[in-house]
Amino acid sequence: MTDMAGLSPKHFQWQASEGIATIRLNRPDRKNPLTFDSYAELRDTFRALPYADDIHAVVFASNGGNFCSGGDVHDIIGPLVQMDMKGLLAFTRMTGDLVKAMLHCQKPIIAAVDGVAVGAGAIITMASDMRLATPEAKCAFLFNRVGLAGCDMGACAMLPRIIGQGRASELLYTGRAMNADEGLAWGYWNALHPAETLEAEAMKLAGRIASGPTFANGITKTQINQEWNMSLDQAIEAEAQAQAICMQTKDFERAFHAFVAKEKPVFAGD
Amino acid sequence: MTDMAGLSPKHFQWQASEGIATIRLNRPDRKNPLTFDSYAELRDTFRALPYADDIHAVVFASNGGNFCSGGDVHDIIGPLVQMDMKGLLAFTRMTGDLVKAMLHCQKPIIAAVDGVAVGAGAIITMASDMRLATPEAKCAFLFNRVGLAGCDMGACAMLPRIIGQGRASELLYTGRAMNADEGLAWGYWNALHPAETLEAEAMKLAGRIASGPTFANGITKTQINQEWNMSLDQAIEAEAQAQAICMQTKDFERAFHAFVAKEKPVFAGD
Amino acid sequence: MTDMAGLSPKHFQWQASEGIATIRLNRPDRKNPLTFDSYAELRDTFRALPYADDIHAVVFASNGGNFCSGGDVHDIIGPLVQMDMKGLLAFTRMTGDLVKAMLHCQKPIIAAVDGVAVGAGAIITMASDMRLATPEAKCAFLFNRVGLAGCDMGACAMLPRIIGQGRASELLYTGRAMNADEGLAWGYWNALHPAETLEAEAMKLAGRIASGPTFANGITKTQINQEWNMSLDQAIEAEAQAQAICMQTKDFERAFHAFVAKEKPVFAGD
Repeated sequence: MTDMAGLSPKHFQWQASEGIATIRLNRPDRKNPLTFDSYAELRDTFRALPYADDIHAVVFASNGGNFCSGGDVHDIIGPLVQMDMKGLLAFTRMTGDLVKAMLHCQKPIIAAVDGVAVGAGAIITMASDMRLATPEAKCAFLFNRVGLAGCDMGACAMLPRIIGQGRASELLYTGRAMNADEGLAWGYWNALHPAETLEAEAMKLAGRIASGPTFANGITKTQINQEWNMSLDQAIEAEAQAQAICMQTKDFERAFHAFVAKEKPVFAGD
Repeated sequence: MTDMAGLSPKHFQWQASEGIATIRLNRPDRKNPLTFDSYAELRDTFRALPYADDIHAVVFASNGGNFCSGGDVHDIIGPLVQMDMKGLLAFTRMTGDLVKAMLHCQKPIIAAVDGVAVGAGAIITMASDMRLATPEAKCAFLFNRVGLAGCDMGACAMLPRIIGQGRASELLYTGRAMNADEGLAWGYWNALHPAETLEAEAMKLAGRIASGPTFANGITKTQINQEWNMSLDQAIEAEAQAQAICMQTKDFERAFHAFVAKEKPVFAGD
Repeated sequence: MTDMAGLSPKHFQWQASEGIATIRLNRPDRKNPLTFDSYAELRDTFRALPYADDIHAVVFASNGGNFCSGGDVHDIIGPLVQMDMKGLLAFTRMTGDLVKAMLHCQKPIIAAVDGVAVGAGAIITMASDMRLATPEAKCAFLFNRVGLAGCDMGACAMLPRIIGQGRASELLYTGRAMNADEGLAWGYWNALHPAETLEAEAMKLAGRIASGPTFANGITKTQINQEWNMSLDQAIEAEAQAQAICMQTKDFERAFHAFVAKEKPVFAGD
């Protein structure tokens, strides 16, 4: 296992303490667009997370009142327009690899969204496990508006399972923004908080998770993604195996002894 | 590619202009029941749509205050009661083929529902990509009430993904009508509009889609259905490929140049 | 076929009349925890239900103001902490087998939930087909709080399809209780009723189902679970076959004749 708290990424901000890593994109003057470099470095960072023993939850936060404006028009869209198919597929696969890396990182990710979260920025919120937002959050899967299909980085698969097939279709066919109230009512946002408290609330939720049974949390994340297209019977057998593994952890034993002693369990992630 | 705007179907109404086809069943005095003939002609029409170059969105509209009362009791239910298994399966496969044809037609379909949409009429709304309705809309998957199972034309697969498994179960086990407010709250209807403006709103939405990147919209429709039971990783790879295709369209290039010029992009579907 | 109305289970209560079986756990002083014995006997009972000709719907009811407090801490959690992997997997498979038996029993199950439904108690409500609750109902998938993963008895597969992926993730990662209003808004509960009328409402719904086309209802239940991870085209073909079977029942014929005679159909389940 490796330590990741001291990471110094070049293309985004990274802070870590008490088991929680906070990521934020760092071009707030332009609403934090993604670049080829930040895509690649984010992908590599999430790919390293399964092996990190000192990070138990991730907060993907906003910066300067916005979350992320998607792929930078000049740095990304411009070059793409010139690219051949080999290059295009290499790019779409890299963006997809970021989502895969988020899904496979074994640590719960909480998006904390203020202002704009559009295009690939919306995808990053979608690929997070939980999502908090401010009343000013605007989330748009706007691929259609730049001449592309709604199927970007897994959106046609994932968005319908979060907000329902009909609502997802409208957002993907029109590219229109989902406002904060819609997102809350539809189950996209887990809760809304004012901008002043958004990040504190995200840290509180992350803290609750990071101080929980972190090995078991990783299994939860693995299973919720792994069972995506299993049959019901297959999923139930998969959970029987996965939960039996968790029943051999000391955290499970700790919880039992704490219950008997009428104390609050203190988990250690093993 | 073929032109379909000038189509003259025998068993339903068809109008087309500016890339939008409007379909309506044509027996308003009986709330627009389906017959063997209209089923078959609808199926064939949706099967032809992938090859039509002049239709980019479909509005499935109401007529005389109702959408569709389902399979005609005298023309369809009566004969079915007499039929042998070979005939019954040929019928249920034909009705299923209508849904398959709607799903595979590559053009977004908007249902505009006033009044009654029951039985196979409810299924047609379900198989549409987006759904608008009036406050008077009554949608019932009433198969259970005529002695049949809720599994009709894909309902047990599709309805749960639109409104959730629990709500779908209730509607399918009881056959009760979902009223307009429920349908809106549950994500079945994308929006409610008064009867006077319903069709104008549906045309507005269809117009927005038909003037968008129509090639990419077809890819969105293909993927949202195609990824239905893929694993997450498979879906993400499928989208990387599908979106790379769309990045080679002129519409993507048009959007980039329009953005740089601070203009609204004009898409051409290629 | 066998008769089950007269069953006398040892480890839970069972009443049956007019085709409806009512189950309730029987340790109300401890909020009705499950034991190894009641798990096994419930599993065996649901496994026998497909062959019962006299039971057409099941109400899983509360007792003494609570539904179920999950696996008993002393009778179940204590022993598990001592168990080897062979024993643990035998236990998690047995609990999973209860869910499988509920899913495969071919009779719609209605959970009627007052008070506490937590841990495996929450799972039993999730594995039911419809769910009614009181405003006092507290449902918690609290596995995380006892050091375990959220993937218990199918929760990572089923809960997202009932309430959406984002809400399910929050409940599974935090173990927090879903209150009654949330559960209603999210589609977990089909309706809320005061404690005084909860069971009467559940019996009314069960009665409606038990007096319906019960053979077809069994097919609905089979299909809604069977099509879980089919492709759309596979599901539509599966429903064409399943519905053709139902069109050969006398119940379908009865409904047609009743309609022609302007009478209410009386179904007999054949």
